[in-house]
Amino acid sequence: MRIDILTVMPEALESPLNCSILQRAQDKGLVEFHIHNLRDWSLRNHRKVDDYPFSGEAGMVMQIEPVYRCIEHLKSERDYDDIIFTSPDGDILDQPMANSLSLAQNLIILCGHYKGVDYRIREHLITREISIGNFVLTGGELPAAVIADAVVRLIPGAIGDEQSALTDSFQDNLLEAPIYTRPAEFNGWKVPEVLLSGNTAKIDQWKLEEAIKRTERLRPELLK
Amino acid sequence: MRIDILTVMPEALESPLNCSILQRAQDKGLVEFHIHNLRDWSLRNHRKVDDYPFSGEAGMVMQIEPVYRCIEHLKSERDYDDIIFTSPDGDILDQPMANSLSLAQNLIILCGHYKGVDYRIREHLITREISIGNFVLTGGELPAAVIADAVVRLIPGAIGDEQSALTDSFQDNLLEAPIYTRPAEFNGWKVPEVLLSGNTAKIDQWKLEEAIKRTERLRPELLK
Repeated sequence: MRIDILTVMPEALESPLNCSILQRAQDKGLVEFHIHNLRDWSLRNHRKVDDYPFSGEAGMVMQIEPVYRCIEHLKSERDYDDIIFTSPDGDILDQPMANSLSLAQNLIILCGHYKGVDYRIREHLITREISIGNFVLTGGELPAAVIADAVVRLIPGAIGDEQSALTDSFQDNLLEAPIYTRPAEFNGWKVPEVLLSGNTAKIDQWKLEEAIKRTERLRPELLK
Repeated sequence: MRIDILTVMPEALESPLNCSILQRAQDKGLVEFHIHNLRDWSLRNHRKVDDYPFSGEAGMVMQIEPVYRCIEHLKSERDYDDIIFTSPDGDILDQPMANSLSLAQNLIILCGHYKGVDYRIREHLITREISIGNFVLTGGELPAAVIADAVVRLIPGAIGDEQSALTDSFQDNLLEAPIYTRPAEFNGWKVPEVLLSGNTAKIDQWKLEEAIKRTERLRPELLK
């Protein structure tokens, strides 16, 4: 998979994309990240990429021209499955969406910034708007990193132990059962007896019951 | 505001917390980030902080001891408004939650990792579990950065232009109207006439109508 990320703040993406599983996935050749600084695509003085909004409110708006030039260049080189814009009012990212994006060959993610981006970018250049939630962030860089992380870890081979991704929360519409490790007692707090019993069938039964209980309590909508 | 972040992967947080508005907020003394490497609180060989789960599945589980020691140390130095754990099954972050967290003085955020954390941490040490959405990530570092970003930008003075945060999406339960900047025409695509009219009353009316239209289409639940 190849992911091109378009941003005015490439430095914000450095550490999230180069840690842990995302680093390992790159090392294994499972994913390539290409970060494009939109200022490199500006034709204006001082590589400016933003201007005042026509509608007169506060804040700066990202202009269409650098985005258009960068996307057209990338599209001339290969086909893209989706050109994603990270926006608080896009479709909300969830596990099924991450699963489906993990099948893509090439993705572009445009990170929003400033007060917003010229709406013509969203009307004419973007194929899909994704939000990571109903809250506002400084820019689209963290959402782009979140989408990349959620998607790339699903590529077969990205996680050392594939079992691990399959038993994640949400993959079977159940939250995970509580999980415990050594010591069996700490500060007077004990792990549930059943887990020390060595009886695999009983443990599996307990895990399923706890997973259903937790889901009923915390995410009842997943059970419908 | 002071935010202490507990993690086994401090390097993942470097660039997100040191860019743009979060950097400026630190420079202005509005927020202090303190990143704690949980390995520094391990008493085991090789600073290990994880072990196999009792329940026998794949993956490693973060142990309670280093987390307990680090949190107890911090709590001995000051009071904390909340000790947050980033978990896919926590309360989902939204703008009202970000608004309320922005009033805190001191917050701890524990980043989950590996297969999970020993459940006793969540039962006995954590006061609040927050999820940024119904999807699974490599670790809690990106969610911690997202929470920090959503919250810190709301501290008065963090954004140069306070107006800008007040007119964000969600703050009045409306998505934003489309926004446009120069040029008025690009590649044959024009900005709406009304925005070029100079008639402020008409522009404001148009913005409100468009905001309602977009909200009805994309987030009807916000209007209920």
